[in-house]
Amino acid sequence: MKPYAQLSPEERRGEYARLRTEFDALKARGLSLNMARGKPSKVQVDLINDMFQLMQDPQDYISDGIDVRNYGELAGLPAAKALFADILGCRPEQVFVGGNSSLQLMYDTVSKGYTHGLAHSPRPWCREETVRWLCPSPGYDRHFRITESFGFELITIPMTEDGPDMDAVEEAVKDPAVKGIWCVPKYSNPDGVIYSDETIRRFANLKPAAPDFTIMWDNAYCIHEFEGDYVEFPDILSLCEAAGNPDMVFEFASTSKVTLPGSGVACFACSKTNMEHMEKQLTVQVISFDKVNQQRHVLYLRDKAHSLEIMKRHASVMGPKFRCVADALDREIAPLDIASWKRPRGGYFVSVNAMAGTAKRTLALCREAGVTMTDAGATFPYGKDPRDSNIRVAPSLPPVEELEQAMEIFCVCLRMAALEQLGL
Amino acid sequence: MKPYAQLSPEERRGEYARLRTEFDALKARGLSLNMARGKPSKVQVDLINDMFQLMQDPQDYISDGIDVRNYGELAGLPAAKALFADILGCRPEQVFVGGNSSLQLMYDTVSKGYTHGLAHSPRPWCREETVRWLCPSPGYDRHFRITESFGFELITIPMTEDGPDMDAVEEAVKDPAVKGIWCVPKYSNPDGVIYSDETIRRFANLKPAAPDFTIMWDNAYCIHEFEGDYVEFPDILSLCEAAGNPDMVFEFASTSKVTLPGSGVACFACSKTNMEHMEKQLTVQVISFDKVNQQRHVLYLRDKAHSLEIMKRHASVMGPKFRCVADALDREIAPLDIASWKRPRGGYFVSVNAMAGTAKRTLALCREAGVTMTDAGATFPYGKDPRDSNIRVAPSLPPVEELEQAMEIFCVCLRMAALEQLGL
Repeated sequence: MKPYAQLSPEERRGEYARLRTEFDALKARGLSLNMARGKPSKVQVDLINDMFQLMQDPQDYISDGIDVRNYGELAGLPAAKALFADILGCRPEQVFVGGNSSLQLMYDTVSKGYTHGLAHSPRPWCREETVRWLCPSPGYDRHFRITESFGFELITIPMTEDGPDMDAVEEAVKDPAVKGIWCVPKYSNPDGVIYSDETIRRFANLKPAAPDFTIMWDNAYCIHEFEGDYVEFPDILSLCEAAGNPDMVFEFASTSKVTLPGSGVACFACSKTNMEHMEKQLTVQVISFDKVNQQRHVLYLRDKAHSLEIMKRHASVMGPKFRCVADALDREIAPLDIASWKRPRGGYFVSVNAMAGTAKRTLALCREAGVTMTDAGATFPYGKDPRDSNIRVAPSLPPVEELEQAMEIFCVCLRMAALEQLGL
Repeated sequence: MKPYAQLSPEERRGEYARLRTEFDALKARGLSLNMARGKPSKVQVDLINDMFQLMQDPQDYISDGIDVRNYGELAGLPAAKALFADILGCRPEQVFVGGNSSLQLMYDTVSKGYTHGLAHSPRPWCREETVRWLCPSPGYDRHFRITESFGFELITIPMTEDGPDMDAVEEAVKDPAVKGIWCVPKYSNPDGVIYSDETIRRFANLKPAAPDFTIMWDNAYCIHEFEGDYVEFPDILSLCEAAGNPDMVFEFASTSKVTLPGSGVACFACSKTNMEHMEKQLTVQVISFDKVNQQRHVLYLRDKAHSLEIMKRHASVMGPKFRCVADALDREIAPLDIASWKRPRGGYFVSVNAMAGTAKRTLALCREAGVTMTDAGATFPYGKDPRDSNIRVAPSLPPVEELEQAMEIFCVCLRMAALEQLGL
């Protein structure tokens, strides 16, 4: 097979006619396959069912002398703080352990900035003329949607192989209206990029004009390798501290993809000043989070080493799925030179950059043939990909057999859209 | 014993000297007793430990075909909605089942009004010059603190034996800056009052000037009788609907004092319009709440009838404590005519109205003798009781033996403070 750009118009028409027949046959199967969200599969949630055999013994309800069943401990069980500190590489007192959703903790942090201000805010953000927010893209649509919902102006920062384009970030933070940035520093959503040491160093050393500029460091995939060994990752809190910016970062994590999506435990980690500020705010809003579930996780996950063992169970399910996706792309698409992608080693996504102007059309064709993917554009602010190119593939939910079929359809659609774009 | 007001100055001095000796002896015991918060006792949380033997069977993880362990169902499991609808007397589709804390759902509702506006808000409340909020008092300090934290102007509405003074409420809502009211309609915190049918009817028929005026109907003690039979209570949602005000009320409830404080399940109930509005907001903030815990509660509580059975277990622990408090007051204080209180049949508090000007002094004496109570004034907006009279007694946490001692101290302190106030 030749690169599509080298095909003559006649060859393109022939190829397209052949693909159309193939597409119609695939469509006739009447499939309904979903690769839209980073949702774990039933096999994965079955893997950790032994968690619910815990919490049977009366002594399981006492943690460091605290009855986990009653009110109290706003910032979470000390043992749960220690667990997350071990996983994230920070100090236990820097950790606030909350409910089941890190997204909610992130929303709440932004919301607190808006309603009451963060620790160094001259005023609540709702009293600012304009608030701008940096969105490394492609990125996570739910992040962008939070800041969009508060009426902030979203600014696209290009992603590179080493993380966000730091020249662009350093330039953007000179604007005092820029109040923060979204980051998924390890296995970034969707590119699967691990921020380089240099990128992280530059983040920690930012000198933003806004005194309350906040790095939202969503370490969602901190221990989520599905290929190869665990990759060590620096602690952003100590790096910011060392750079004289201790209060510039909030880190987030959860066990949604370690234990159970929706019934895990989430946390944030931050400096002492930020913790005091947040606790003062949070005590108005909640008495305490679900400490029984925190304790269940402490008993189940134990520490970072044992959590990594459990992640190997997930890897055994996730690895083959990601290989299926990347192999299909390598086989069907690589020779045609109509798209690019990377083979991630962790996280939940494969990011495909289709030929400019073909992402929407590709996904419309997919939908027609029964394959649902994340909407084209979703990985950019306001859901608008200026190049109409990026497609997020989320292979975790379907079993491999279904994934094979979905990828067959996806590759045909990618090719058809590319040929249409090249002209028929 | 004669009413204190009838004592001669000399008699008062004699009585005070006698009490002082008693106080010193009590203080010398070096006790540390806590009646500050409505926190269930260890005996109560032990009562429902069988809950954690559930969720062992694979079939327990499927509810109406939904795998409760995975993402999804933002508004909660249908079975959990049905459970709360049964308890509250509303329709399942009116119920949003959330996380562990109804306080957090209330905070979030107010916060959404502030940041984005409620369904009928002309603009978000942060864009209003002034927002005023009605606070029936004595009331719940955590309610008042939420609206205070957003900078709203808190307006005290007197409580009567039938609930909030509805003449005052009807007058106050003529002000378009008045955006809402806090209510604990059954076993009000702290008075233990059940709003009368007439009060509830007048609430449902309010004609507020603000189109987004919201009744925050915190039905925290909806099935929380500790004395006598369950008291039927009208459904505020259908009453508001019938009165042409379907969107004027959000009802809240939780199982914090049915199953476990901090590890229960909370919900709100509201009209279709409000539900659509809130879901649109909430989907930005969270993917779904902890459905494993929701399912655990569905299996454990089953329905209203069985929940009422479980509440009888709590009543067997709570009843004696409340009798201890009321008996001590009847015995030690009633003849002196220096305070008034009621004998509630449900809820978590006894509200004592001490002689005006003596609440703070009484509690300072209590603290000196090792008894911690809710701060004087806490039951009023801004923590300021204009008469310095109301004291909230929370007898749930200590065992009866300790409660007996705490009440002995409390009664001595009430008497000393009254005598000081009358003049020595």
